[in-house]
Amino acid sequence: EEQSQPAQGDPYSGDPPRHPALKVNSLKPFNAEPPAELLTENYLTPSQLFFKRNHLPVPAVDPASYRLEVEGPGGRTLSLSLPELKSRFPKHEVTATLQCAGNRRSEMNHVRPVKGLEWGIAAISTARWGGARLRDILAYAGYGGEETGEWHVCFEGLDKDLSGSAYGASIPYGKAMACEGDVLLAYEMNGEELPRDHGYPVRVVVPGVVGARNVKWLSRVLVSREESPSHWQQNDYKGFSPSVDWDTVDFTTAPAIQELPIQSAITDPPPSATVPPGELTIKGYAWSGGGRGVIRVDVSLDGGRTWHVAEMAGEEQPPGRAWAWRLWQLTAPVPTGSTELDIVCKAVDTSYNVQPDTVEPIWNLRGVLSNAWHRVHITVAQD
Amino acid sequence: EEQSQPAQGDPYSGDPPRHPALKVNSLKPFNAEPPAELLTENYLTPSQLFFKRNHLPVPAVDPASYRLEVEGPGGRTLSLSLPELKSRFPKHEVTATLQCAGNRRSEMNHVRPVKGLEWGIAAISTARWGGARLRDILAYAGYGGEETGEWHVCFEGLDKDLSGSAYGASIPYGKAMACEGDVLLAYEMNGEELPRDHGYPVRVVVPGVVGARNVKWLSRVLVSREESPSHWQQNDYKGFSPSVDWDTVDFTTAPAIQELPIQSAITDPPPSATVPPGELTIKGYAWSGGGRGVIRVDVSLDGGRTWHVAEMAGEEQPPGRAWAWRLWQLTAPVPTGSTELDIVCKAVDTSYNVQPDTVEPIWNLRGVLSNAWHRVHITVAQD
Ligand SMILES: [Mo]
Ligand SMILES: [Mo]
Repeated sequence: EEQSQPAQGDPYSGDPPRHPALKVNSLKPFNAEPPAELLTENYLTPSQLFFKRNHLPVPAVDPASYRLEVEGPGGRTLSLSLPELKSRFPKHEVTATLQCAGNRRSEMNHVRPVKGLEWGIAAISTARWGGARLRDILAYAGYGGEETGEWHVCFEGLDKDLSGSAYGASIPYGKAMACEGDVLLAYEMNGEELPRDHGYPVRVVVPGVVGARNVKWLSRVLVSREESPSHWQQNDYKGFSPSVDWDTVDFTTAPAIQELPIQSAITDPPPSATVPPGELTIKGYAWSGGGRGVIRVDVSLDGGRTWHVAEMAGEEQPPGRAWAWRLWQLTAPVPTGSTELDIVCKAVDTSYNVQPDTVEPIWNLRGVLSNAWHRVHITVAQD
Repeated sequence: EEQSQPAQGDPYSGDPPRHPALKVNSLKPFNAEPPAELLTENYLTPSQLFFKRNHLPVPAVDPASYRLEVEGPGGRTLSLSLPELKSRFPKHEVTATLQCAGNRRSEMNHVRPVKGLEWGIAAISTARWGGARLRDILAYAGYGGEETGEWHVCFEGLDKDLSGSAYGASIPYGKAMACEGDVLLAYEMNGEELPRDHGYPVRVVVPGVVGARNVKWLSRVLVSREESPSHWQQNDYKGFSPSVDWDTVDFTTAPAIQELPIQSAITDPPPSATVPPGELTIKGYAWSGGGRGVIRVDVSLDGGRTWHVAEMAGEEQPPGRAWAWRLWQLTAPVPTGSTELDIVCKAVDTSYNVQPDTVEPIWNLRGVLSNAWHRVHITVAQD
């Protein structure tokens, strides 16, 4: 068997070492984000600093015995070794941002307590991914005929809980099979083999879709009329009205999160910074799900009364396939006489969707989809 | 020639008669919306009540001499008569909502004056459209090969200004050619031939995309590396930051509006209504662009402090092809002792995009894309 976890004792004792700069939200399972200021120093996040979101212990996978199982139509099962996966299908590369559904959850927690890890603004990162296209593998397995967008492609990971139950998720079949969907079974991240924390040896990368569907340590792929039966597909990673609480929630009433809404945040200056009078440079990121590009970022120094348009850096991507974030910055004069600044950012995507003004009305019991205007309050040093 | 406008005098004298219930925003060209309360009485808007948005006089088209010109690759031009259009290509039917970019513009005008017609909340309507698929016609003309999503399909109407310049617009080639794009050259509306105000004999219907691209009285289709050169594609129907005014605007810096963002509004009770104490039923519509469905409508009776989830009616449409609105309603007790209610609605789409809280931060000089929470202030009658 390819998975060897410690037979006894701490199931997390086999986890890999991590970069000391990461801000840890949970050690077991390991969940951590980079310092926000470091996040926007690079368009491609260095893999060691890329946010880590593990639901379970990191499996130790032997690449020699690793097999990916792909269930074909009629129950025929394909079993692919790592060399087969790499040689039989053309390598495809995609620059894509992944964002945790819980990114910026801490802002919801300040409104009313939510259930989940206390993520700041950095549960989002961007990498260059390389691997086989999922559609090529599914076509090789025999798919491509009569199945429709209402089918689902289900994934299982090698990460398991103590009962032996694996992490799982699914995406719509249409997304998996679309030429322009760019879904990968990735074995490379930023030009190197996948790090263990990011799914070594093979993970799913579903550009434009919430992190939770980008299953790591992939063991099994199957096409189904139903979404993945996993806890994370059925009873988690869904959005609800602020009026719904844990006594009234019915998880069957909301769709599993797939594409994410427009998002942006300020990474620099950090909250509570003191800046000199004169000119101020503000930096951040902006991203939208579903391949929708970011067309504009508005920044305010006065809490949202007046706005400046930020400059955007980063690669332009094709229409409908803007999978990666845009980094932005604004250099503006600090209004003379001001002692404090309430900096705000909000982004607009190619469908002209915008971020909501405030957190309260999008609050939800699980603390997901936190994409209100981001605010940073700073002090201006007096001469 | 198929177009016969009055040779002299009022170019609008040939316009058709209209339903007297329509609220007219402009007579020449004719622009009108139905009373909001009537809008949600029917899932399919009766054609006579469907909002009318004309940019120019309604052309008088002789169906016998009508020809649709389709430029094929290499300049070969196809000329299709109406019977050819109807017989040569399978008839395809789609239920789709059209919304004017300026729907709800009057709310922006209350913030700061904008340039445009004073639309209320009813510049949006839904019909069952029947016609030929644009992709079938383009394939017949010879397309389908190497062109990509970065090409454009340009449309010209038979409606012309006094200088002879026709209304025009374009959509991305990828939208036009996608199996699941459902773009029609429609000759039927709600089971009858197109009314003159809606483009008789043939119009474009681009589900999920702003009204302005749904060119009426279609005369010509061509595939181009560039978007339509028309005024309405290049220098209108684009969104800008609230900081941009008519002195600083540069229309080359913003993309032409295509897919529209999530939208909803309250159609009943009307503003300034007085309702009895007891139970109150609130009605409205919700819709999102790009085929994204509406997954939830939240309604507040207290200005957005607390929320109820509305019941949705209307057909479920396939994922990614939810072209039509959902009508919704909420029946809730009027809180005892209240003398006024500040009713608010906001919707969520399948990508979990939400509406912004307020109008000011999305204000733009052209008054388009007005999709903040909709608010209706009413009085509660005292016993
Ligand atoms: Mo996540
Ligand atoms: Mo429009």
